[in-house]
Amino acid sequence: MMIDRGHRLKKLRRQLSRRRLDCLLVTGKENIYYLSGFSGDDNWLLVTGDRAFLITDFRYRGRAEEELTLECELRVRSSASLSDTVAALCRELSLKRPGYEEHHLSCAQFNSLKRSLKGRKWRPAGSRVEEIRMIKDPEEISLLRESARLTGRVLNQVMSRARSGLTEKELAGHLTSAFIKRGCEAAFPPIVAGGGHSSQPHAASSGRQFGPGKILLVDLGMKRRFYNSDMTRTFVLNTFPRRFKTIYRAVMGARKKALQEIRPGVKASFVDARARDYLAEKGYGSYFGHSLGHGVGLEVHERPLISAGSGDIIEVGMVFTIEPGVYIPGWGGIRIEDMVLVTDNGCEVLTTYPKDLLSMVLNGDW
Amino acid sequence: MMIDRGHRLKKLRRQLSRRRLDCLLVTGKENIYYLSGFSGDDNWLLVTGDRAFLITDFRYRGRAEEELTLECELRVRSSASLSDTVAALCRELSLKRPGYEEHHLSCAQFNSLKRSLKGRKWRPAGSRVEEIRMIKDPEEISLLRESARLTGRVLNQVMSRARSGLTEKELAGHLTSAFIKRGCEAAFPPIVAGGGHSSQPHAASSGRQFGPGKILLVDLGMKRRFYNSDMTRTFVLNTFPRRFKTIYRAVMGARKKALQEIRPGVKASFVDARARDYLAEKGYGSYFGHSLGHGVGLEVHERPLISAGSGDIIEVGMVFTIEPGVYIPGWGGIRIEDMVLVTDNGCEVLTTYPKDLLSMVLNGDW
Repeated sequence: MMIDRGHRLKKLRRQLSRRRLDCLLVTGKENIYYLSGFSGDDNWLLVTGDRAFLITDFRYRGRAEEELTLECELRVRSSASLSDTVAALCRELSLKRPGYEEHHLSCAQFNSLKRSLKGRKWRPAGSRVEEIRMIKDPEEISLLRESARLTGRVLNQVMSRARSGLTEKELAGHLTSAFIKRGCEAAFPPIVAGGGHSSQPHAASSGRQFGPGKILLVDLGMKRRFYNSDMTRTFVLNTFPRRFKTIYRAVMGARKKALQEIRPGVKASFVDARARDYLAEKGYGSYFGHSLGHGVGLEVHERPLISAGSGDIIEVGMVFTIEPGVYIPGWGGIRIEDMVLVTDNGCEVLTTYPKDLLSMVLNGDW
Repeated sequence: MMIDRGHRLKKLRRQLSRRRLDCLLVTGKENIYYLSGFSGDDNWLLVTGDRAFLITDFRYRGRAEEELTLECELRVRSSASLSDTVAALCRELSLKRPGYEEHHLSCAQFNSLKRSLKGRKWRPAGSRVEEIRMIKDPEEISLLRESARLTGRVLNQVMSRARSGLTEKELAGHLTSAFIKRGCEAAFPPIVAGGGHSSQPHAASSGRQFGPGKILLVDLGMKRRFYNSDMTRTFVLNTFPRRFKTIYRAVMGARKKALQEIRPGVKASFVDARARDYLAEKGYGSYFGHSLGHGVGLEVHERPLISAGSGDIIEVGMVFTIEPGVYIPGWGGIRIEDMVLVTDNGCEVLTTYPKDLLSMVLNGDW
């Protein structure tokens, strides 16, 4: 599958000229890959009105020659620093109004850029590339669809063999190994949280063992051909703990409310509010402390943000999670997380793993 | 094993008072773990002259309560941003000369800090915590020793089963799976580069298959209980390719020259120069394009830097790699990388995997 990176550069250049910038120094790793095809670290990309330069060094030269899209040129620096090389290019091409990615440049790197290029003012360009990345190309959509589907298969395969005596960490390890056997990797260390531990939305998998009648929350994602997935299911071992069914139905209800509102033109904050209000009505308002969802793509967490404070507007081609949850300290937590793709008049759920109450019961030797 | 984090905070406070800073905002993830024991993301640590505050949110509260060292207090922010919470703390404690880690704060984060705390000047504090981290505690040394040893065992186990038909990516996957089976993880995606591909020091493992008489470079490391390892071996399949023995001996010679110079008080740049000069004498001067080594600890690459431009001085308790290499485009590359610990009068090699020429020959069905 050929990814059309020229098209992306064109969109970016349109943004730059709108902001009267004659170039953008792209320093975010995923942004560099998105625009140039190069996947290494410690490299920067300078995009001007009609050219683009990947600035790399000896270590990455061969890889850059293999990976770089035709629209980009290679500058291999030897002893000069990244910022000196950028400064030399700016002088060579008479660039007067350079922009930078303030979210992807440390204060130290910025100071070094300023020292290297005296007499020019670097202008913060915000999240131009991230904004372009919010709307997925057809090639990206098929990669994301495949990541979401395969993640469900891996979860199914591992859970069908899970038995008592396993610890959270071991189960997380089985999930990661299963990803690797399929030639991909875990997008993040899987979160496996049993019993009361599941009430921590970002629990670290521990050495705890599982037992019957307990909750088992599993949050996992894979990274395959640079694109991530993210999903959560909350299982129970053999029997439902007290209150589980009621709370599970409330979370499912919040999910449904959110999905009904997703369509082009709607504010992301409105979708968040619908799920949040529903949980509040059911009496769980104070037990849902994180945002409803986030974009997924080259990063596991990217724009758009589906939260109360988000300024993002939903558009066709966006892919994000919807993940309402209720977390009750001491009792446990329930989260259901799916990836959805925004279509012309609604959305399509990309995560194929079942989520009805009965499918959440793991039977066997617990 | 109990890690004495109070001791580390004390060292940091000594550094702060030397610089007349009344607090340091610690934003580097590994620095936060090192000082506080907390291992999550999206959290900052404010260390004052007599207190320390981990600023976290709802998602990480439970984890923070479990992990945090006794010397640190917890501030759970709700809707306030990280920078607003820091600013409130600075006002509450009348902190007048706050310092920040300019390498671990993006320009956007810094601007938001400045907006939140008007009337105070944030001062760049450099790499104070990284400098303390250069000298390892006894507990850290035993963790690093164990990581280095186990990595050699994993390599041995996987290579003894490697056979023709495998691709670079598959072999890298086997290594990663083996780490996970041992309850740890890969410190970085293992670099497996066969044949001419090995001439790229930072090759991405590809779909290439191996064949007899070819070079097979493997660079791998594990992360176990937060501490990393890093090592490289360069194998050959059944028979030595042309020039291999000569170049291998040159790399071994450079390694030996470097090890002979490692002892407390010596400049890191001098160690680098000894290895580099030796390779130049042998005619490979232009084929060794990266630095000789780097510290290993909570990060795979950390201070000290063993390079021509390094200002670091070698001290007892440092742990770093020594990794000379010769990379000849088209032909291939040879790198030998070990982790060493600086002792009172020299160094101890922590990587136990053999590296004599004959041990590099993988026999079997290639």
